[in-house]
Amino acid sequence: MTIITLTTDFGLQDGYVGSMKGAFWSIAPEARIADITHHIGPQNILEGALVLASVAPYYPDGTVHVAVIDPGVGSQRRPLLARIGSQYFVGPDNGLLSLWLERAEAEGRPASFFHLDKPDYLLPQVTDVFHGRDIFAPSAAHLAAGVPPEQMGTPVDDPVRITLPRPQRTPSGWRGEIIAIDHFGNLASNLRREHLDGLHVTSVRIKDACVAGLSRTFSQRSSGELAALINSNGWLEIAEVNGSAARRLQARVGDPVEVEAG
Amino acid sequence: MTIITLTTDFGLQDGYVGSMKGAFWSIAPEARIADITHHIGPQNILEGALVLASVAPYYPDGTVHVAVIDPGVGSQRRPLLARIGSQYFVGPDNGLLSLWLERAEAEGRPASFFHLDKPDYLLPQVTDVFHGRDIFAPSAAHLAAGVPPEQMGTPVDDPVRITLPRPQRTPSGWRGEIIAIDHFGNLASNLRREHLDGLHVTSVRIKDACVAGLSRTFSQRSSGELAALINSNGWLEIAEVNGSAARRLQARVGDPVEVEAG
Amino acid sequence: MTIITLTTDFGLQDGYVGSMKGAFWSIAPEARIADITHHIGPQNILEGALVLASVAPYYPDGTVHVAVIDPGVGSQRRPLLARIGSQYFVGPDNGLLSLWLERAEAEGRPASFFHLDKPDYLLPQVTDVFHGRDIFAPSAAHLAAGVPPEQMGTPVDDPVRITLPRPQRTPSGWRGEIIAIDHFGNLASNLRREHLDGLHVTSVRIKDACVAGLSRTFSQRSSGELAALINSNGWLEIAEVNGSAARRLQARVGDPVEVEAG
Repeated sequence: MTIITLTTDFGLQDGYVGSMKGAFWSIAPEARIADITHHIGPQNILEGALVLASVAPYYPDGTVHVAVIDPGVGSQRRPLLARIGSQYFVGPDNGLLSLWLERAEAEGRPASFFHLDKPDYLLPQVTDVFHGRDIFAPSAAHLAAGVPPEQMGTPVDDPVRITLPRPQRTPSGWRGEIIAIDHFGNLASNLRREHLDGLHVTSVRIKDACVAGLSRTFSQRSSGELAALINSNGWLEIAEVNGSAARRLQARVGDPVEVEAG
Repeated sequence: MTIITLTTDFGLQDGYVGSMKGAFWSIAPEARIADITHHIGPQNILEGALVLASVAPYYPDGTVHVAVIDPGVGSQRRPLLARIGSQYFVGPDNGLLSLWLERAEAEGRPASFFHLDKPDYLLPQVTDVFHGRDIFAPSAAHLAAGVPPEQMGTPVDDPVRITLPRPQRTPSGWRGEIIAIDHFGNLASNLRREHLDGLHVTSVRIKDACVAGLSRTFSQRSSGELAALINSNGWLEIAEVNGSAARRLQARVGDPVEVEAG
Repeated sequence: MTIITLTTDFGLQDGYVGSMKGAFWSIAPEARIADITHHIGPQNILEGALVLASVAPYYPDGTVHVAVIDPGVGSQRRPLLARIGSQYFVGPDNGLLSLWLERAEAEGRPASFFHLDKPDYLLPQVTDVFHGRDIFAPSAAHLAAGVPPEQMGTPVDDPVRITLPRPQRTPSGWRGEIIAIDHFGNLASNLRREHLDGLHVTSVRIKDACVAGLSRTFSQRSSGELAALINSNGWLEIAEVNGSAARRLQARVGDPVEVEAG
């Protein structure tokens, strides 16, 4: 009854995701499969890492999170299995697990890593172009079916790590930047709730807009107004109530965000 | 083995839907999850209500339909659980269940409503910005796992209701309007099969087009022709055979439809 | 525990797919459902046939593949059930199963076909506009629940077949054409690995580009370069590494591809 989740940049028009599900269920017919998203920007590892870190806390122990955003497929980059706390990651060793791992380490949960180098747990024919189907899907399914990670690969201790840009302290607050834009056009920054603890935020500036104070919820502002609030994943976010802040401000990932605190 | 369905305006690029599935399966590991759609127009409650009413009849007894189109998240709007016939609705109390409920009441199926105000059935931390994950997902999962609705909230009897615009009788037929445009560009109106029973429809006018008579099926017209027919949900629809009536007629929701009957 | 897969041109914004899942689970509550894609181009049977042929090999015995790209709904075209090797196809008899069937026949796997003409296995009310929900979903579910195909329809032996354009041998290699463009903008041609076996490919020409030699994998070329390689389904493909060959070359399905071999 293990859950396998799936996060990719494959889109939904082709058979890629469907082939992976066939490979999962051929090996682990009891597994539940949860599509997280297949609309990560092509080759955008950081975007995938953010989504993975945001969903993993809501899954039960034993869940296997498969993430395939894989610009290095067919190169020397390792296929990786990680145990992070009581859950698992399966995917390319390119940093996709980084933000989730960073949070786990900060909370004292142990992690261990394995290079998926045992052919017994892969499809009989491994192409050089689709490791999602040929390596990661069967590996995740064997794991879901009960094979111990130690049996599936050689232990390693140096997974590739990527980091978010760090926000900077300023004399009057913080300078951060936009790290993600969601379906609604809400702008998430790299400033977390923890950065703002104990501060009285007077304004948040982005592009040519200045939002006064922090809201607790969207509905504290009127429809069409901009609001700054802590979003459901703990990041400072700028949103237009019932609208798109991204479209209104022509904002992009990387745009600076200035927080003034009194 | 209860089924949980999920209808939202979250899109599929972020982790929102994925977090909800984690919350479902953390509480009800046996539940089946059916994504209905996550592409309801942002904050478009009527669109969500139409989809929900169209799918519910095809699900078995006990199914829990979760719908989250929630412009009022964090405001005073109530989180609602409804028993409608032998199925359940979980979502914001903003009218999403209205069209399904109206049909049920017309068919004599009983309904009862509960304000989801018992913290035991929510996530430990409820944010003010994502009730889909923090309130509706765990509530639906507890319901799917067998908790009686009476235990999960306080009974209420005044759920918010929205209505479709009503079609008008004219001397020679009916005047209605377009209420939904599907993926194929087919134009569904607010005229139901029941309105046209016993009438001999001679023409259907929309924008500058006049479609002669009603077809039983698309294939009674040639490719590229317009057809008027009763669609799979019982609504009068204008379609272009193997094409898009919406694109061809530049039609929008709200455009008037005139039916002439002889 | 049978798997039902679903391939359609319905898109994901409406309730069509959701209604089908309700019909599946009302009859076969134990079935697993795998969405393959709902983004086949409207009425594009060949595109659906390609996806189906690409995913079927990765599913276990007994899987029921439902495909509904159905421009002929409501006409005389037959609703079809096929047993292909140890798996099943359910959908309109319009060629959707052709490419999968062709491969199965080439590999000596037996196939048999049935006209779904027994009302017992359909929904009580069959509309003339949505056979996916009213005929194919219940038929697939009864099959998944164990009803023998022989019981569900009359045997036939002449399923509609469509074929891919055949590549042409040239004095110096092969002339093919683009048959599919994926989410990444990779261009798949109708030249298979088997056509190129034993040849030393010196160049692949498409539009005004000339790609030297065949790569084994994307990562043998630099980011932004074009590469020609055998894709994960065995077709010769032209790709831009970490980019979109379709956008760069303004390429479309049907564009010619010239392979020179030394």
